Amino acid sequence: MDYEAQLDAALSRLHEEGRYRTFIDIERQKGQYPKAVWRRPDGTQKDITVWCGNDYLGMGQHPAVLGAMHEALESTGAGSGGTRNISGTTIYHKALEAELADLHRKEAALVFTSAYIANDATLSTLPKLFPGLIIYSDELNHASMIEGIRRNGGAKRVFRHNDLAHLRELLEADDPAAPKLIAFESVYSMDGDICPMEAICDLAREFGALTYLDEVHAVGMYGPRGGGVAEKLGLMGRIDIINATLAKAYGVMGGYIAATAKMVDAIRSYAPGFIFTTSIPPAVAAGAAASVRHLKTDQSLRDKQQEHARVLKTRLKALGLPIIDHGTHIVPVHVGHPVHCKKISDMLLQDYGIYVQPINFPTVPRGTERLRFTPSPVHSMDDIDRLVRAMDKLWSHCALNRAELTA
Amino acid sequence: MDYEAQLDAALSRLHEEGRYRTFIDIERQKGQYPKAVWRRPDGTQKDITVWCGNDYLGMGQHPAVLGAMHEALESTGAGSGGTRNISGTTIYHKALEAELADLHRKEAALVFTSAYIANDATLSTLPKLFPGLIIYSDELNHASMIEGIRRNGGAKRVFRHNDLAHLRELLEADDPAAPKLIAFESVYSMDGDICPMEAICDLAREFGALTYLDEVHAVGMYGPRGGGVAEKLGLMGRIDIINATLAKAYGVMGGYIAATAKMVDAIRSYAPGFIFTTSIPPAVAAGAAASVRHLKTDQSLRDKQQEHARVLKTRLKALGLPIIDHGTHIVPVHVGHPVHCKKISDMLLQDYGIYVQPINFPTVPRGTERLRFTPSPVHSMDDIDRLVRAMDKLWSHCALNRAELTA
Repeated sequence: MDYEAQLDAALSRLHEEGRYRTFIDIERQKGQYPKAVWRRPDGTQKDITVWCGNDYLGMGQHPAVLGAMHEALESTGAGSGGTRNISGTTIYHKALEAELADLHRKEAALVFTSAYIANDATLSTLPKLFPGLIIYSDELNHASMIEGIRRNGGAKRVFRHNDLAHLRELLEADDPAAPKLIAFESVYSMDGDICPMEAICDLAREFGALTYLDEVHAVGMYGPRGGGVAEKLGLMGRIDIINATLAKAYGVMGGYIAATAKMVDAIRSYAPGFIFTTSIPPAVAAGAAASVRHLKTDQSLRDKQQEHARVLKTRLKALGLPIIDHGTHIVPVHVGHPVHCKKISDMLLQDYGIYVQPINFPTVPRGTERLRFTPSPVHSMDDIDRLVRAMDKLWSHCALNRAELTA
Repeated sequence: MDYEAQLDAALSRLHEEGRYRTFIDIERQKGQYPKAVWRRPDGTQKDITVWCGNDYLGMGQHPAVLGAMHEALESTGAGSGGTRNISGTTIYHKALEAELADLHRKEAALVFTSAYIANDATLSTLPKLFPGLIIYSDELNHASMIEGIRRNGGAKRVFRHNDLAHLRELLEADDPAAPKLIAFESVYSMDGDICPMEAICDLAREFGALTYLDEVHAVGMYGPRGGGVAEKLGLMGRIDIINATLAKAYGVMGGYIAATAKMVDAIRSYAPGFIFTTSIPPAVAAGAAASVRHLKTDQSLRDKQQEHARVLKTRLKALGLPIIDHGTHIVPVHVGHPVHCKKISDMLLQDYGIYVQPINFPTVPRGTERLRFTPSPVHSMDDIDRLVRAMDKLWSHCALNRAELTA
């Protein structure tokens, strides 16, 4: 068996399709984000502006967050030293979970090492709790949801993206007595579009299904306290399980679910992905809690993010660039070819000090390759101006289509 | 559909079997570990000694680790702000991976958010790279390995724990041309026993199989530089993929694999559990790197840990307690009943300020419930003395069997 040749073949496929990825090595400077230093493979450096980060509000450098982390580190140490059940539960974990339960107006919350594992572990455990469970999953759901739904080979139905008629059709086709769950996202991160949440909740009620909502790209940024799109729409009470992250708008790390005390109790008791892993460091929990707390009241960051997104979209549109605009903070520019996408990204970085990663398959479907900009409150109008000018020049240089590609 | 009733049923099963778990809320005091404060559900506090932590060497409070974390936090901020491919690769991640590759004398290493996800993601991705792969898995492998092996429904064979004859039998029964991988651990954490590593490597060579070794409970603690049991036995070169954690002996958080550059390149390119998740915070990476670096030279911590384990085992054996002794740092005391196990643990905590979590199903097979002590270099002889006296009293009090239960 020639394992080496098999690895070569697997890697060649990526190179041939132009979707082999190279890590871009960057160093953020606290307080100066989105400015950072790019370290090239040859060791030389270049100042850059990060335009593809998921630290959406710049909370990763907020004094409240850093202060809480330094303090916890100083008083309790580095790691938690155990799983949640075996010496790894601290007052920091408890405080964070209380903060999150309050955020979503749920009885309880449960923190995982990431939102990826929170999705995977929860969705793969629910069929153990509700034997015969059928999961209805939006076709554009995140990889972590897909992995969780697939894992134990339970029954699943995939509905076309945000397609209520298709969802209804699938629900109607199944045994009315079967336990059911509808799994979907609020903001889909690659297009920046939003689900028809109320209508999905109505369908769930009609068919007696549970609702599972991923708010990873919404918490901190939508709703008067940052509770996400469900909070903004007044629908938190109709969602049975909310999943979200502490690593994007909250700027730290980790993920969680929020639900009834009983649901959380059952998940924490039955999910291997929760039981058999070391809990997050107390300092990480402390920083995340401080961030969640801060964003419950700081509306100005949310407003500024939305404003910057609007300005960027308006200006790119004015140039006739093919942007995808669903009114959220995410600004995707359609390229449609993995090699072109990578090429533009390379030129932006090398020639203009603008860092935006090309988004290729499998993150998005083939043929929809894109650049995905994430304007934040800490990007200045000057940053936006430089980005727009660079895109204008590059688009002409590459003779890419303009208006006819616009979504 | 009465979801509430289903949850009640799921939770009742745990209560009935005596294996419902309650989080013990503790607060470590930096520099005083294993001392900590237990916060009872009613809000009152009690000083305790932690005897079941996985911060095996006390590195979670080591100045080198904390210094590196404070520094990274101060210079770069809280979170990484992205996945490894999209703005979440920093010089801290690169430095940590270089440190780990060097530790295991491999060309490359790849850091994940936990060793759980490192096992799960890697083992579930290998069948994509080597179509038709058959995985031979020790029956006592960790939950994360089992989940990874199961995930994509690839071919698997489970061999009896450490049973070379059975492994050979299974290897012989399969197509000699099929790609194969043997997955096993060095130190099995619940019994503390060690695999017959060289013989397994010999079988792998004979049958043309890859080797996958989990050193989660060995790195930092075995081998002259903390490279694990494979380093101690001079076998690192014969292991294709080494998996381990940064959250136990290294005292921080995160997990990794180490392998050839090509193998790592393929895993990072194809594993959803790696691609679609935010990378660990730079401060966590910095702390972990400092810890790995420190333990490459500090043999005294390893020696002291082994000495304390020997003393504890000798004294418990002298009292006739049923300890399981395989010569490692893990000291399990067999109880054999989930309710008794929980009861003794409760009494140790409440009456003696000794915190050791009962280990019940599914962490160990039913009927083998146990207390599992983890003596460290930071436990004093006095701590050991108090533990031994408490166990002696409680064992008499509970009229539990002594010598006849000894392994």
